[in-house]
Amino acid sequence: MGGSEAGDDSKPKGNRGISFLDFIMRIVAILGTLGSAIAMGTTNETLPSFEQFIRFKAEYKNLPTFTFFVVANGIVSAYLAVSLVLSILHIVMSGARITRVVLIFFDTVMMAFLTSGASAAAAIVYLAHKGNASANWIAICQQYNSFCDRASGSLVGSFIGVLVFLLIIILSALALSRN
Amino acid sequence: MGGSEAGDDSKPKGNRGISFLDFIMRIVAILGTLGSAIAMGTTNETLPSFEQFIRFKAEYKNLPTFTFFVVANGIVSAYLAVSLVLSILHIVMSGARITRVVLIFFDTVMMAFLTSGASAAAAIVYLAHKGNASANWIAICQQYNSFCDRASGSLVGSFIGVLVFLLIIILSALALSRN
Repeated sequence: MGGSEAGDDSKPKGNRGISFLDFIMRIVAILGTLGSAIAMGTTNETLPSFEQFIRFKAEYKNLPTFTFFVVANGIVSAYLAVSLVLSILHIVMSGARITRVVLIFFDTVMMAFLTSGASAAAAIVYLAHKGNASANWIAICQQYNSFCDRASGSLVGSFIGVLVFLLIIILSALALSRN
Repeated sequence: MGGSEAGDDSKPKGNRGISFLDFIMRIVAILGTLGSAIAMGTTNETLPSFEQFIRFKAEYKNLPTFTFFVVANGIVSAYLAVSLVLSILHIVMSGARITRVVLIFFDTVMMAFLTSGASAAAAIVYLAHKGNASANWIAICQQYNSFCDRASGSLVGSFIGVLVFLLIIILSALALSRN
């Protein structure tokens, strides 16, 4: 990983490559999580009703799990934006150790937070699609079609974010082991 | 962290302490995840019914998310048992680098897997307790009281496992940075 470049001190150069990759991947994760937060946060569907005063409206605020999903994605994308500072620092100072350990810690916490939000939302999206006969929960997607599609789609960016976090953490560990 | 012991080469000794802590924490995580899998996997509740041929039975198999939870906890506890081998190796060879990076990778994957199972189950447990008015999902816990208590309780071991994984990963990163 960049270690093939000829040079007197190949290890720091390799770490510089890793740090640059880290920076790019954080941008990807920001796009994914921010996209997820916006996609879930802005979708709503109002069903036409014959009764004038009764309106059925589906939006993320009505489902606490989806609210958690939007909040988690928002916080994680904000964290990722802040973490870019340390990421740039690691490109410049490729021999850094303590800041890498600090970053691994926060990355792992944020990865768990994001995984938590994405998985909880996925469980509810699954339920909305399939329903559950034994619990008597109906599949609301049959009514709220476009809301369900949007909610399902918004999971993608979040899970991409989880995968990117996994790569970021392993790259940081690799950089630490080469120092 | 063990570094306070007097010695000529304090760093490897410190890593030995970290590796020993790693071993102990993996045991704790095994107990947590195995306990969760068993607690959720063995609970079921059959409601008394006046109709002879209709029986309402709540068990984890009827809720796909709970099945996922049991499988995830089972796989993670099995992984943790296997990982004890590398953990012991790190106590003996406290200067190891490559195996630590490998372990960080698998630990992170398993942490995400466990977080996913625990959070998805938590979303369903929350729904079972509170229900959701806008989606017309009833709070089944009012009927299946003991099933719900058991399912809620089984989340604890799993989330303890997630916290322990977080500590294990950060300790591994710390050990790598001291090598």
